[in-house]
Amino acid sequence: MKTLAIVLVSGGLDSCVTAAIANQSYQLAFLHVNYGQRTEKRELKAFMDIADYYKVKHRLVTSLSFLKEIGGSSLTNFKMPIPQGLPKSKDIPSTYVPFRNTHFIAIAVSWGEVIKAEKIFIGAMEEDSSGYPDCREEYFSIYNQLITLGTRPETKIEIVTPIIHLKKAQVVKKGVELGAPLHLTWSCYQREDIACGRCESCQLRLKAFARAGIKDPIPYLNQ
Amino acid sequence: MKTLAIVLVSGGLDSCVTAAIANQSYQLAFLHVNYGQRTEKRELKAFMDIADYYKVKHRLVTSLSFLKEIGGSSLTNFKMPIPQGLPKSKDIPSTYVPFRNTHFIAIAVSWGEVIKAEKIFIGAMEEDSSGYPDCREEYFSIYNQLITLGTRPETKIEIVTPIIHLKKAQVVKKGVELGAPLHLTWSCYQREDIACGRCESCQLRLKAFARAGIKDPIPYLNQ
Repeated sequence: MKTLAIVLVSGGLDSCVTAAIANQSYQLAFLHVNYGQRTEKRELKAFMDIADYYKVKHRLVTSLSFLKEIGGSSLTNFKMPIPQGLPKSKDIPSTYVPFRNTHFIAIAVSWGEVIKAEKIFIGAMEEDSSGYPDCREEYFSIYNQLITLGTRPETKIEIVTPIIHLKKAQVVKKGVELGAPLHLTWSCYQREDIACGRCESCQLRLKAFARAGIKDPIPYLNQ
Repeated sequence: MKTLAIVLVSGGLDSCVTAAIANQSYQLAFLHVNYGQRTEKRELKAFMDIADYYKVKHRLVTSLSFLKEIGGSSLTNFKMPIPQGLPKSKDIPSTYVPFRNTHFIAIAVSWGEVIKAEKIFIGAMEEDSSGYPDCREEYFSIYNQLITLGTRPETKIEIVTPIIHLKKAQVVKKGVELGAPLHLTWSCYQREDIACGRCESCQLRLKAFARAGIKDPIPYLNQ
């Protein structure tokens, strides 16, 4: 019987490839969190499609209302515009949702403690991403200490970040190599029908496929 | 203008006294989380009463559905009995809710990052409490590192645990000394109309008042 690993699956490219990596060695449990973001429904569909693809039985889909209530991010406050184009600086972009990953991982830890999972896979990338503070290796390293201290002595849960030092083009290649269902993923920050191709997230994705020399299998508006 | 501090207020004795301590030096913001526990409604009333007492304007009341879905605790799984009487061992009791404090503090951090709070007060007690792993000083120390790493560089939020090394009888005395509204608090784990006086939480509270030589201002069943 394989060890159980929880994968945080937003439905995007990075989490899909992370699931493909976890699938090589673990029995999968998928966690998805709705948090009032603009593309909540479309991301949930991507999650379900990827979960079906990997025939995942252990699924937890939950909703957090407070991140939208609190605001402070262009993903949850619809009055703030979504940044367009590739990031122009190393500054933290307006799409940063305050302390978001801490919530997602904490849900995985609570769930993992009950279903006896031993790993939590998250598709965070440190260098080649949007510059969110809660995507850095040091953050996850400290979080692992917090899990050890904050759970039952017999609980053995560890965060695993298999793509943290990859470039996004390498993630695309890795996904293709592992047969990850990239055609089922959703990355666009602002549309739910067809990817806009212009927002920061679409632009980072398109650049990654271009650099990898692979055609992005999803359609884009005006392309 | 005083610095803003978020206080995690469950509505129990410890968080009420913690609020009284924070009130000495800070402008208060109160956070309360419903998580499907048995006495959810009564605890929320206690929260509101204490918030009114301190005339707190910044209030966030939110609900987490997943802790009950996940289960694993007699506070959220109503098929599990609530332990009666004082704890008989140092084991983690069935009332432990997996990784609960991590969620509560993470909500405070997300909120604090937006409203620019600088402190998060939590009424955790290490030695003289129920033996929950997420109530230890070392846990909060690591959590402070996680906050520094996982938020914007300009965010300065620190967890403060003013009663972590107090005995519960000292907490009662401190509360009386500071004029904390102990008559508005709720500690019972199993009833919402009148405190049972028998569950672990009631027993710890009654013992603390007895040791402090102070009459508990709330009524109990059969007393």
